Amino acid sequence: MHRLALTKPDGRELILYGRQPLEPVSHVPAAGMRSPAASHLRWHPLRAEWVIYAGARQNRTFLPPADWDPLSPTVDPARTTEVPPGNWDVAVFENLFSALGDAMAPPHIDLVPTAASGGRCEVVVYTQDARGSLSSLPLERVELILEVWAERCAALARREDVRYVFVFENRGVEVGATLHHPHGQIYAYPFVPPMVERELASLTAYHQRTGRGLLEDMIAAEITADRRTLFVGEHAVAWVPICARWAYEVWVAPQRAVPTLADLDAAERADLARALHLTLRKLDALWKRPMPYVLTVHQGLAREGSEGAHVHFEIYPWLRMPDRMKFLAGSEVGTGSFTADTLPEDKAAELRAVEVPA
Amino acid sequence: MHRLALTKPDGRELILYGRQPLEPVSHVPAAGMRSPAASHLRWHPLRAEWVIYAGARQNRTFLPPADWDPLSPTVDPARTTEVPPGNWDVAVFENLFSALGDAMAPPHIDLVPTAASGGRCEVVVYTQDARGSLSSLPLERVELILEVWAERCAALARREDVRYVFVFENRGVEVGATLHHPHGQIYAYPFVPPMVERELASLTAYHQRTGRGLLEDMIAAEITADRRTLFVGEHAVAWVPICARWAYEVWVAPQRAVPTLADLDAAERADLARALHLTLRKLDALWKRPMPYVLTVHQGLAREGSEGAHVHFEIYPWLRMPDRMKFLAGSEVGTGSFTADTLPEDKAAELRAVEVPA
Repeated sequence: MHRLALTKPDGRELILYGRQPLEPVSHVPAAGMRSPAASHLRWHPLRAEWVIYAGARQNRTFLPPADWDPLSPTVDPARTTEVPPGNWDVAVFENLFSALGDAMAPPHIDLVPTAASGGRCEVVVYTQDARGSLSSLPLERVELILEVWAERCAALARREDVRYVFVFENRGVEVGATLHHPHGQIYAYPFVPPMVERELASLTAYHQRTGRGLLEDMIAAEITADRRTLFVGEHAVAWVPICARWAYEVWVAPQRAVPTLADLDAAERADLARALHLTLRKLDALWKRPMPYVLTVHQGLAREGSEGAHVHFEIYPWLRMPDRMKFLAGSEVGTGSFTADTLPEDKAAELRAVEVPA
Repeated sequence: MHRLALTKPDGRELILYGRQPLEPVSHVPAAGMRSPAASHLRWHPLRAEWVIYAGARQNRTFLPPADWDPLSPTVDPARTTEVPPGNWDVAVFENLFSALGDAMAPPHIDLVPTAASGGRCEVVVYTQDARGSLSSLPLERVELILEVWAERCAALARREDVRYVFVFENRGVEVGATLHHPHGQIYAYPFVPPMVERELASLTAYHQRTGRGLLEDMIAAEITADRRTLFVGEHAVAWVPICARWAYEVWVAPQRAVPTLADLDAAERADLARALHLTLRKLDALWKRPMPYVLTVHQGLAREGSEGAHVHFEIYPWLRMPDRMKFLAGSEVGTGSFTADTLPEDKAAELRAVEVPA
């Protein structure tokens, strides 16, 4: 993997990646100048969690006209985008409308603790081509993206103001995606988000109690049961978890308890790319329409590490039937408790039956 | 308040409430027969929470044709609805498509613990009139609804298979409301949902540490600050919380740390109705359109009680601008951490400036 690190006119970092040596870039473009940072954290005393206030984001780009795509290479110097022309495959840059990364002192509020919103938000552009999606890219590109994610996770995890690195993708207008160009995001949080804390506590407690990995044991049982698995490779596995909350929820993981994306070896990464690619193609093939989803990567803490951590993807498809969304409403949003209308076994059977070319 | 308890042909309970003595009901209708119960709980070992599997709900009523409303009084005996004609004001019945309430033994699964899904789901019909909403009903009706909620909470909390009673309303198609007739729901959970547990732990810890109520202290500070409050009555208060996650999030509470709706005295209930009614009218008047929202009631545990519990409404409006939804996507759904694009102080100023008739 080749990389070329550049700096945008407003100081934001831009990194180009490619399998081929990268052509030099004569002009580093930007779709806009970074707004004055205006974010901070406030403590929510009942939920016992930080809330991020990012005032500069209210007017961020929202479904721009079809003829303008800030994630496509700049062709018209009068209408610069976020990425230059050239022979790059994948590009990463700091988000113009960032929720995190304001190092300024937070406003003083008597009622609750506040904090500066350190950290960083990045955009990962999967391809120069505005069409398609992660599922329609060739497998080699998915592998490269995994390598880029791993490199960015490692780099962000080294920052003093980062405690957790979260890789994700919002796919489809149904989940609020504002740009259709294939891309994902990385949030490098200055704190440990509440659900991350809870999941890592479960993994650590299990490891301390049994000496084994919770997800390793779940995966071994799924492979034996051979009922909910979608892919079982030499190193990776994809399956509908027995405790799926979303109808077509799929997890993708290395079989070994590797803590973060950066800790995968080359063979594991290649097999994980195969498992992920197959899963996304099955989801799109299920109803022959692009499945709206939220893709999330769960891994161990940045520098602190997490006993028992096991990096894995959790993919949450937003539809429970071809024309019916799963809405997060009163009961889910109010209590945190999920109600699924379908059984994981039934949905796994459907996805197992979906044929996609190898 | 008068009440009349009835039983539907399939055994479901129906209770009618009114300020006037209730006319007898000759025929108790139902919009359908309850499906064979088919729900159970599975433990999610990473999130450390129960997931409810309710297979019978997949095909539940979804935006029925405009000429049929299962929550309006039955007029045509060939097309029965869920409620009879008569002089009732508010009706409560067990949900036809219930996520909870299956006492049968759960299926055996090797990988994770399972449990029977005890408890109950109820529908609260606010009025016989299919039009309008909680905000457009007269204040007296909101008071009566509060009294009905309190009675149902007390009754459900006495059940052996209930640990937490959750009152809520999904308002608007944007939040997945499938029926437009003004109504809310009650979930009587057989377990303590994860966010309830977390909030009650915060309240209890604060009470043990300080001897005071966390919400009482927050409310006193808000009244003094006089910046985010929308209503300050003799007994109740409505305000945009300093840690709001949704742009126009509003909390409504009694000033005294009353643990549950059933523990309110008559004066507190009347003032709480005023605060809630004013809040909902302000939200609808803000952009002169019905505001889609999720309304939730947070209270102490059922029979066990909760030290420091303080019943309050949390209202989550789904829009952050007149035409822009707040989407719960990657970062929120994946990590549990919220990013707000606006400051509570600014949104409170907007809502304070909205004039509604007293």
